[in-house]
Amino acid sequence: MIYLDNAATTVVYEEANRVLFDAGAEFYFNASALYAQAVEAEKRLKAARETLKTALHAGDGAFYFTSGGTEADNTALFGVRKPKGSRIVIGAGEHDAVMNPAAVLKEQGYDVVYAPVRRDGSVDEEEFAKLLNENVSLVSVMHVSNHTGAVNDIKKLVKLTSKYAPKAVFHSDGVQAFGKIPVNIRALGVDLYSVSGHKIHAPKGIGGLYVSKRASVKPLLYGGGQEEGFRSGTEMTPLIWAFAAAVERNMAHFEKNYSKKRDYIEQLSKRIVELLPDTQVLTDFERCAPHILTVALAGVRGEVMLHALEKYGILVGIGSACSSHKVNRFGSLLALDEAHKEGTLRFSVSEFNDIGETEQVAAAVAECAAKLKEYARK
Amino acid sequence: MIYLDNAATTVVYEEANRVLFDAGAEFYFNASALYAQAVEAEKRLKAARETLKTALHAGDGAFYFTSGGTEADNTALFGVRKPKGSRIVIGAGEHDAVMNPAAVLKEQGYDVVYAPVRRDGSVDEEEFAKLLNENVSLVSVMHVSNHTGAVNDIKKLVKLTSKYAPKAVFHSDGVQAFGKIPVNIRALGVDLYSVSGHKIHAPKGIGGLYVSKRASVKPLLYGGGQEEGFRSGTEMTPLIWAFAAAVERNMAHFEKNYSKKRDYIEQLSKRIVELLPDTQVLTDFERCAPHILTVALAGVRGEVMLHALEKYGILVGIGSACSSHKVNRFGSLLALDEAHKEGTLRFSVSEFNDIGETEQVAAAVAECAAKLKEYARK
Repeated sequence: MIYLDNAATTVVYEEANRVLFDAGAEFYFNASALYAQAVEAEKRLKAARETLKTALHAGDGAFYFTSGGTEADNTALFGVRKPKGSRIVIGAGEHDAVMNPAAVLKEQGYDVVYAPVRRDGSVDEEEFAKLLNENVSLVSVMHVSNHTGAVNDIKKLVKLTSKYAPKAVFHSDGVQAFGKIPVNIRALGVDLYSVSGHKIHAPKGIGGLYVSKRASVKPLLYGGGQEEGFRSGTEMTPLIWAFAAAVERNMAHFEKNYSKKRDYIEQLSKRIVELLPDTQVLTDFERCAPHILTVALAGVRGEVMLHALEKYGILVGIGSACSSHKVNRFGSLLALDEAHKEGTLRFSVSEFNDIGETEQVAAAVAECAAKLKEYARK
Repeated sequence: MIYLDNAATTVVYEEANRVLFDAGAEFYFNASALYAQAVEAEKRLKAARETLKTALHAGDGAFYFTSGGTEADNTALFGVRKPKGSRIVIGAGEHDAVMNPAAVLKEQGYDVVYAPVRRDGSVDEEEFAKLLNENVSLVSVMHVSNHTGAVNDIKKLVKLTSKYAPKAVFHSDGVQAFGKIPVNIRALGVDLYSVSGHKIHAPKGIGGLYVSKRASVKPLLYGGGQEEGFRSGTEMTPLIWAFAAAVERNMAHFEKNYSKKRDYIEQLSKRIVELLPDTQVLTDFERCAPHILTVALAGVRGEVMLHALEKYGILVGIGSACSSHKVNRFGSLLALDEAHKEGTLRFSVSEFNDIGETEQVAAAVAECAAKLKEYARK
């Protein structure tokens, strides 16, 4: 099997998985209890929080653990205190975990507007600036597009927001960025930043939200008052420690793995285009994360290609796993022509992919495309 | 170590932990992706859902996985569609995961009222009935008290609600009931029922909410539309499968373990009262779950006793781990006298506790009480 759907989810690192197992078997104590083991659990939880904050360059902001990226995004969108009817600016290519809470806010009477994206899926800064005004209470633009790997210039977008919409709180969904590209929250200047564990070889069911000192955010979950009252529920210590262990390994080999992934997608892109010259490469190598290559094949449906590649033992995505069962709004978003708009295919790699695979993958794509086109012609 | 804080959290069953580990290492696929492995993951997820529904006797209702009991309770309290200003009836001894969302709803203008509890922590049905009227939109009464183990007569409370508050949706927090006492949701007649994994030897970070066909509940988390749109976020398949594995083991040995736990707390209660006759036993053996024994010691503070017992390697709770760092509102709730109101101590057992321990635990409690009283007299 060649697994090329790492933007959907990843295998858990052996050491993170071991941490999870051992905690469940041996150090399962409730971190909010009062005996020494609980106090030790709380101490380890604090250390895990520091690991996350260090990795994110979170400075004096806070970091709260959540059940994942979706909960973090929902907390940001719903939790930011904002006047009724105020404007909310959302990137047009945001993940559904931002898009759908925004739709609920629109129903509630907020003025939700969408910042257009370029062909590569990144937000157009000039168009973005036109949407800003004194009445904007919240901005949410993802750091890296899950569709194309495009990296948004968050720093620039934050500066524009500060200038033209000074009351706005800036949230960025960093689920496809954290652990993939260098993330320095203080340098970015965002108020809120969402991360997820299972995209970077930590278990499913854990993520978190960075909250700056400036931002005022209400909780989404109320209860026992864990996470300083920001996120109630028994602390998911085994998941949290496993997340921290994955982050530590990620950070220790960051540059080497960055290059490895980047080389892989560039090589794969080159070979696919050589074999299928009418392919449109949507990922812009001038401005992309190292782990996602999205192409639009001509005259082939992405979903059909996905299943054809499956027979070669190659697993890929077609944009977003979360919305893979729904209508593909992605082709039209990026204004692809008729021949290409159904043909998007997403290859997403991890450090466990080897560049040697690229030849085999490209050849399989070309072979499948030829067969599918021939079939379509009949 | 004698671990007697199983109402706070439990060790993960070996087989559930193994399921969790193996899924992270080998079957980590995103259940919403399109290839065969993902389809298989989705199939296993459905099987896990059936396991839960069968265990709960959920009939034709739905069961959705959440990150835990707190998320399930919050979804129930906030998600039920209810007219602004309508009445919400809450048990006075509810867990903070119900109490605090209710407080938020009160701030929003709902008429939140609290059903008084008896000395053992169970809701007084007559007092409860007095609070019902046509204007009640939501009732939330826990199945088993986390403070005392008292079992509420949910069936009776549901009947009263149907009669006097026919528009109300009935939610029950079953976190301390599921896996501990027989739960038959259809027989209970509730609309919503919350459960948690980590209280019954599944990992932390997983739980769920039963939703009857009759109830109309909005999601708390919006996004990729997982769990039939009821709870978005990448399906936490390893946690879900581990939860189902724990439930299967629990159900397979239910009666044997029920008796084992029940015998333990009865024996422990008997011995403590023999050694310390001025102890008040708050758990009413006529109407309690098998795993919780709560007593009020005379002239001793529960927290001090907790730390004294720690030196004997005995870990206990003092009501609720979640609120253990906060002021104890429990003593006053149950109208304990001056001598006893600070002295509550909760022993909560699992199948891994052996009745042979009770002698040692009771002796340690008596020894500590003597020392602490002597110290107080000086």
